[in-house]
Amino acid sequence: MAIDFSFSPEVEAVRLQVRDFMQQEVAPRAAAVDESDRDAWIQAIVALRRDAHAAGLWMPHMPAEWGGMGLGPTALAAVSAEAAKVRIGPWVLNCQAPDEGNMHTLLHFGTETQKEQYLRPLCEGRKRSCFSMTEPEVAGSDPTLIQTRAERDGDDWVINGHKWFTSGARGAHFAIVIACTDPDAAIPQARNTAFIVDTDSEGFELVRDVETMAGGHNHCEIRYRDVRVGGDAILGELGGGHKLGQVRLGPARLAHCMRWLGQIETALEMLVERAQNRFAHGSLLSEKQGIQWLMADSARELYAAKLMVLHCAYRIEQGLDFKQEVSMAKHHVANTLWRVTDRAMQVHGALGYSTDTPLAGMLQQARWARLADGADEVHQMRTAELLMKAYNDTGTVNAGVGNLPI
Amino acid sequence: MAIDFSFSPEVEAVRLQVRDFMQQEVAPRAAAVDESDRDAWIQAIVALRRDAHAAGLWMPHMPAEWGGMGLGPTALAAVSAEAAKVRIGPWVLNCQAPDEGNMHTLLHFGTETQKEQYLRPLCEGRKRSCFSMTEPEVAGSDPTLIQTRAERDGDDWVINGHKWFTSGARGAHFAIVIACTDPDAAIPQARNTAFIVDTDSEGFELVRDVETMAGGHNHCEIRYRDVRVGGDAILGELGGGHKLGQVRLGPARLAHCMRWLGQIETALEMLVERAQNRFAHGSLLSEKQGIQWLMADSARELYAAKLMVLHCAYRIEQGLDFKQEVSMAKHHVANTLWRVTDRAMQVHGALGYSTDTPLAGMLQQARWARLADGADEVHQMRTAELLMKAYNDTGTVNAGVGNLPI
Amino acid sequence: MAIDFSFSPEVEAVRLQVRDFMQQEVAPRAAAVDESDRDAWIQAIVALRRDAHAAGLWMPHMPAEWGGMGLGPTALAAVSAEAAKVRIGPWVLNCQAPDEGNMHTLLHFGTETQKEQYLRPLCEGRKRSCFSMTEPEVAGSDPTLIQTRAERDGDDWVINGHKWFTSGARGAHFAIVIACTDPDAAIPQARNTAFIVDTDSEGFELVRDVETMAGGHNHCEIRYRDVRVGGDAILGELGGGHKLGQVRLGPARLAHCMRWLGQIETALEMLVERAQNRFAHGSLLSEKQGIQWLMADSARELYAAKLMVLHCAYRIEQGLDFKQEVSMAKHHVANTLWRVTDRAMQVHGALGYSTDTPLAGMLQQARWARLADGADEVHQMRTAELLMKAYNDTGTVNAGVGNLPI
Amino acid sequence: MAIDFSFSPEVEAVRLQVRDFMQQEVAPRAAAVDESDRDAWIQAIVALRRDAHAAGLWMPHMPAEWGGMGLGPTALAAVSAEAAKVRIGPWVLNCQAPDEGNMHTLLHFGTETQKEQYLRPLCEGRKRSCFSMTEPEVAGSDPTLIQTRAERDGDDWVINGHKWFTSGARGAHFAIVIACTDPDAAIPQARNTAFIVDTDSEGFELVRDVETMAGGHNHCEIRYRDVRVGGDAILGELGGGHKLGQVRLGPARLAHCMRWLGQIETALEMLVERAQNRFAHGSLLSEKQGIQWLMADSARELYAAKLMVLHCAYRIEQGLDFKQEVSMAKHHVANTLWRVTDRAMQVHGALGYSTDTPLAGMLQQARWARLADGADEVHQMRTAELLMKAYNDTGTVNAGVGNLPI
Repeated sequence: MAIDFSFSPEVEAVRLQVRDFMQQEVAPRAAAVDESDRDAWIQAIVALRRDAHAAGLWMPHMPAEWGGMGLGPTALAAVSAEAAKVRIGPWVLNCQAPDEGNMHTLLHFGTETQKEQYLRPLCEGRKRSCFSMTEPEVAGSDPTLIQTRAERDGDDWVINGHKWFTSGARGAHFAIVIACTDPDAAIPQARNTAFIVDTDSEGFELVRDVETMAGGHNHCEIRYRDVRVGGDAILGELGGGHKLGQVRLGPARLAHCMRWLGQIETALEMLVERAQNRFAHGSLLSEKQGIQWLMADSARELYAAKLMVLHCAYRIEQGLDFKQEVSMAKHHVANTLWRVTDRAMQVHGALGYSTDTPLAGMLQQARWARLADGADEVHQMRTAELLMKAYNDTGTVNAGVGNLPI
Repeated sequence: MAIDFSFSPEVEAVRLQVRDFMQQEVAPRAAAVDESDRDAWIQAIVALRRDAHAAGLWMPHMPAEWGGMGLGPTALAAVSAEAAKVRIGPWVLNCQAPDEGNMHTLLHFGTETQKEQYLRPLCEGRKRSCFSMTEPEVAGSDPTLIQTRAERDGDDWVINGHKWFTSGARGAHFAIVIACTDPDAAIPQARNTAFIVDTDSEGFELVRDVETMAGGHNHCEIRYRDVRVGGDAILGELGGGHKLGQVRLGPARLAHCMRWLGQIETALEMLVERAQNRFAHGSLLSEKQGIQWLMADSARELYAAKLMVLHCAYRIEQGLDFKQEVSMAKHHVANTLWRVTDRAMQVHGALGYSTDTPLAGMLQQARWARLADGADEVHQMRTAELLMKAYNDTGTVNAGVGNLPI
Repeated sequence: MAIDFSFSPEVEAVRLQVRDFMQQEVAPRAAAVDESDRDAWIQAIVALRRDAHAAGLWMPHMPAEWGGMGLGPTALAAVSAEAAKVRIGPWVLNCQAPDEGNMHTLLHFGTETQKEQYLRPLCEGRKRSCFSMTEPEVAGSDPTLIQTRAERDGDDWVINGHKWFTSGARGAHFAIVIACTDPDAAIPQARNTAFIVDTDSEGFELVRDVETMAGGHNHCEIRYRDVRVGGDAILGELGGGHKLGQVRLGPARLAHCMRWLGQIETALEMLVERAQNRFAHGSLLSEKQGIQWLMADSARELYAAKLMVLHCAYRIEQGLDFKQEVSMAKHHVANTLWRVTDRAMQVHGALGYSTDTPLAGMLQQARWARLADGADEVHQMRTAELLMKAYNDTGTVNAGVGNLPI
Repeated sequence: MAIDFSFSPEVEAVRLQVRDFMQQEVAPRAAAVDESDRDAWIQAIVALRRDAHAAGLWMPHMPAEWGGMGLGPTALAAVSAEAAKVRIGPWVLNCQAPDEGNMHTLLHFGTETQKEQYLRPLCEGRKRSCFSMTEPEVAGSDPTLIQTRAERDGDDWVINGHKWFTSGARGAHFAIVIACTDPDAAIPQARNTAFIVDTDSEGFELVRDVETMAGGHNHCEIRYRDVRVGGDAILGELGGGHKLGQVRLGPARLAHCMRWLGQIETALEMLVERAQNRFAHGSLLSEKQGIQWLMADSARELYAAKLMVLHCAYRIEQGLDFKQEVSMAKHHVANTLWRVTDRAMQVHGALGYSTDTPLAGMLQQARWARLADGADEVHQMRTAELLMKAYNDTGTVNAGVGNLPI
């Protein structure tokens, strides 16, 4: 036990292997294909996935017995950040959202039968999945408001409801659906249950791919009309939907943060590059104090972001409570992504606003980070509550500000 | 090698010992004395220092052979943060600025004779010292502008100049003075040299204790009028003043940050306490979303501050380069101190603005943090420069944003 | 009717007369006296007041029949901003807080007898007054919480309570005291009543001048112990304390803003002066982009501040509702004062933190602006409420964002 | 002369007429057409323009003798803000960018022949135009860097160069092109000249409609390859391109601000509406303090924005210098647009990120405001320069912070 910010040589070797694979295979081969030619595009990705698998770069988040790389959370952070520097990187490694989170959830909560039927094909890259919780009519951040109902009918359950922002639904073979099974439960957190629903079930209606500020990204609207499932469709316990969400969302949020680190780094590199090559009003932009402030603020915020992600991963790895830390990290990393990308666009001027660079798309994507997996306001509320609890329980705020040994 | 955010049991035991001593001895015994009764006040501190020394809590920053606790930088961070929760804590442990930094400097650069003559009595708590670099006429952040001259006269040097913000001068037995010895040096960084000057030297004139926003705190104005010292007064190398400053200032800045952590924590605890006990407009302040935002922002910023300090200490401990990391940490921690203290005052309302709580004094002190040991603007410039250098040298910004393994 | 941002030649002439008097008489004559010599200091002010009176520069806020300059609110804004560029300016013109607000209140709510007894000597500069509303035990921003009680006893009222931040109490001849007369009033706003209380009344105990971050500035703590007053001590109506406060506070807040404009302008001028005369790292500060950003941000914020004050004064002048506009102006001007003064200090470096310039004192004073006469949080709440009301009533937010014709 | 924030009844009547026309004709008739059916869409707009013309609502910015409404700048501000609340409003009134600015420019600088040939058909709505200044290779904010060359050849000029963000080029009949005619001019500002170039000229190559973050909006890339024009194609004076740009851009920037006011108001109304109808975590969003802060900040910023626009228009109307005021207003209004739209999106959550409301498109459009017609950084630089000039010339900053009479 001693403060240590380094990886073992083995982990560092894996990180470098992923980085090299991304830079030498994924980036150039993706760039060589016209993305608007969907067939060619998908073929290229399939080939890349095959090669990744062959190279042992497959599912960094899963244990070896399921075919994954068996990395711990801290190593996973390093690998995920590298993979995310290329947009399709996570997909090539089969660790893209929401499949990654769903695998994690099935591994923890699935029965053996569920694992064979649903987890196995995900791990083998043969199927895809989606996660169906948010509803248009109620605030997604408050799961006690969920209106989708699952009602018992004999041994079966019949699900009716309306969801959207069900990520990954188009092309998915099944959905993990959060539905209310007991609206009168004494504890609000016991109202909901998770179900596994095949997307070809009768009554599962994919209404549309909801178009967003960043285009259509498979955030779908779904109607559940009398969808009938057996009792074995329950994932985890009856009334355990809230708990399952909590277990799922902590690491899922951190997985987002890991990927965002890679994107922030990319945006900052573009900013630094441009500033050193653009001349205006008597000097390079990089020689101007204000532009340097944009750089320094970005560097410092990214420094903090990396430290937080590393620390959260460490806490998960050690089996320590991580709720407060992940809330703080999620808020900070999402907002750093937004700010750094915005600054990079500003330094690029009109070029940055055009789609001639990836920045416009990156900024449109980045906006989602402040809303996804708990809007900023929700994490702020949780952080304040846990800060007060820490102070009230122990007389100091230490457990509310990261539980660090200083 | 593996990511680890914990201390060894030995270090943790020391930290707790310091915390207990501060809470059980220092705080109550200081509170029991009327500070305006200078004699009683000094007697109380002297007694506390004696007891600290007896308990082995003496100079956490110095090696055991000099009578210190022999802690490494990470353990030092923990102990310093604890000590700083009581205002006079660092003084009781004999690790107050600028003596701490001067001890560090003498240990690294002093000859054996200099160490016996100047370092020994500092370590034994028998003498005090000051550091004399900043000048009123020129920007303190740019050492190439220093105007104080030391001119050779036979074997001696004759120093003339004008300094201020020479911290700790009143009551000090000697000063470490940075003076220009070669205004025409090819490399601007080779212009200056450090000298040890006894404060009772002829021509050493302590003009005044410069009054500041936080009262008189022994930031003195000094005139050097034909102050004659021998060649053995040079500390380090001739022309090595800049290098000495760099070596001194990195850890000294981090030492400030360690103490500031303790103060931020105190301010945040006051904020949380008050918000939970003040009612207005229909609810406790702590139940209002906006006040919760103040808490959450503070928690997150303090979380980042602690992580940065720990990481910087780790890099120093490992003998790694720490310039960029300390610049980022110093900027972040100083501004966090300012913001959190300001928020705590706002939540206290008129009470916070009065001197009935320590907050008014804390805010006045905190303002200095954004100027001391390199104003914000200087650290921002350095951070941007090193960020660009990292990118230009390696093609990624990683070495400019903390050199972390992710 | 037409958009017009200019004053009549008469008003402009008055403004210039005040400016000249401040620059040519008040500033130099005040600077010539050692403020720590209280007798000399007071004599100097008395002489300046006599000369101001003789020059017709007396009470810009009061009508001619009471000996004032009879200016409307917009002209008053210009004159007050000029006067505030010298710290004692408002006192010289006999328009200092809280007397100015008390005169305003007495003029509107006083009986003829009250006016002769209390307003007349204030106008003649023979007496001073204080305003006693805030209580240490409850949030000052929520007048429904006031605990000071006035209970009827025959024809008299007996007041008991505890106040602080009773501005101007030391040396005042009377206080306007807000006390609860009907704790069970159906409408919370009808609970309180204003009383005029002579400070030499039995039971009026001035506990202390509460020391603040900016020193002792006559924000006093008062105990009212069985203070007996007659029924004629009621100012305005029984149960009319809330209404009186509202009528008083709108213009009083704006009067603060007018004075703050002058102080912001002074701080910004110091910033600009220093930046053009300080060299560091290869150029003048004024040539650096980041320092220019501090200037530009300050200029723009001051521009908005002046426009808001002018517009609020116009609305008062026209008899239009001004509650929302004054809340927005108060928040903006107070925060601009804080930010611009802080930036000026930062640009001054260590000198700014010392008391060698007025900046340290200005920053300590400026902190009060974010708490006085409604803390930021209270004005934010009111602004949001009135914004929603405007939208709900009219279908547009126009009446909630200044009621402007665009 | 007296401070007056109201319009004459005539102007107010015009404003209301525009508002009614927008609400009762433009908005519903546009909503009734499927915008993806280009023919139907254009027919609808043509019909609306015809009706606007018939109603006397045509070219609010142009004098009556050219068929316009003959409004002064302040009245124009009110009318433009109303028109901009419907996206196609400015086009219906024939006051859309860049035609509006080009009409203004031709009116001031065109010869009689140029006016008949180019201004007349614009005013009659028969033709459209574009403005061609920005170049991809150099910073658009620094016109001394322009590389497009016009070289004299006999009586003709031959233009070669590369432009982009030539707004409105697709469908335009002519372009106003800024080209360098004298790269060695003693004064850099005398290098450039404006030319009128027919878009069907040989060598005028419209490369593409540059796609942006907000889609394709007719910001085109143009190659000028040996485009030959006669000497009568010069608009204004030889070497007068910079001056023409200055004259054009001031009002054009303000015209942008006027339109942005309407959009900010729309975004704020959506925010207020949503907050009062969305429930989460125990209360409506509108009842939460933090959401109220978003409202109050937005209200205050919009208040300042309106005041600045009104004041700038007043200064133009009075023939006063307006450069500093317009720079400050442009920066503030553009950033207010960005912030308020962003807050409205955050309050809408996932719905705001989807394209089910106009917010996503509004935020993508709003990003351009911080770059168009002088990026933020350029206006900040100009503001600081003019602030220093004001202080240096007069001893006060007043002329640098709005030239207001207070």
